[in-house]
Amino acid sequence: MYFGIALFPQQHVQDIVNSYRKRYDPHYNFIAPHITIIEKFELGENEMLSLIPKFEEIAKNTDSFTIEMKKVSHFFPTSPTIYLSIENQEPIIHLHQQLLKELDSHKPTYDFIPHLTIGQKMSEDELHDVYGSLRMHSFALTSLIDRFHLLYQLENKSWVNYQSFLLKKR
Amino acid sequence: MYFGIALFPQQHVQDIVNSYRKRYDPHYNFIAPHITIIEKFELGENEMLSLIPKFEEIAKNTDSFTIEMKKVSHFFPTSPTIYLSIENQEPIIHLHQQLLKELDSHKPTYDFIPHLTIGQKMSEDELHDVYGSLRMHSFALTSLIDRFHLLYQLENKSWVNYQSFLLKKR
Repeated sequence: MYFGIALFPQQHVQDIVNSYRKRYDPHYNFIAPHITIIEKFELGENEMLSLIPKFEEIAKNTDSFTIEMKKVSHFFPTSPTIYLSIENQEPIIHLHQQLLKELDSHKPTYDFIPHLTIGQKMSEDELHDVYGSLRMHSFALTSLIDRFHLLYQLENKSWVNYQSFLLKKR
Repeated sequence: MYFGIALFPQQHVQDIVNSYRKRYDPHYNFIAPHITIIEKFELGENEMLSLIPKFEEIAKNTDSFTIEMKKVSHFFPTSPTIYLSIENQEPIIHLHQQLLKELDSHKPTYDFIPHLTIGQKMSEDELHDVYGSLRMHSFALTSLIDRFHLLYQLENKSWVNYQSFLLKKR
């Protein structure tokens, strides 16, 4: 099965992000607005079952945190993606590193930069247009992050929740 | 916020169901194949937080179970919906009743009949056509159900997982 691990920001942030994704993100129908923590990887269901207690342990030992998003950024020319950048990346990077340690066969494709995608697979012209119109915009969004979600992918490419893991309350 | 509670059957069942939903279910992009346990209801986020421990308690005291689906059925003329009917409905009805008790302001619209929708909002002609071609088909699908999921709905009508609740292992 194909699995992935993601954070979902709170609904008020998701609704704003979706207003852009609807036009600029071909994955709009496959998954809700999210911050990828572990990119798509393949693992047998039984192997995953043996990892669940480790994920629970990580969640239990990780404090909930609040993320702040003010500005758009992009990954061009590496990837034609526009995203909301996360001001305080440390807690997300820490979570990523801990989870990645449990998945030793899983090699990430890119360096890990936490981000909330608002558009991807865009033409170069479109990317420059959209980035040009959004780059001066100040978003001032915050979201509590108090859980992460293990997801699996269906044949039609959409993602379904397998299990949510609650972080420690502060 | 709008919440709902659902069971997701295992992936092999979801992929088969989606092969029909893609053509016949306008909610195909809003949520993965599921069995609704509690229909959409409105509740403040803080009120929901106070219900979570009750849901956890119900999950902890409910045995995991396996569902079996062999035949399609429909809700016409009440509703132009075609679904896979569940052979052994008792554990799902029991879960529904327990969860409903915690939501005393929530009045279900219909009698609760556990089902896995494969098409809805169909024209009468289409419904009869599709039902006519599927009614003699034997599906022989089974799925373990070892968790339920509390979901919330975004402005764009799609559903996001809020929290998963693990049933007792047998």
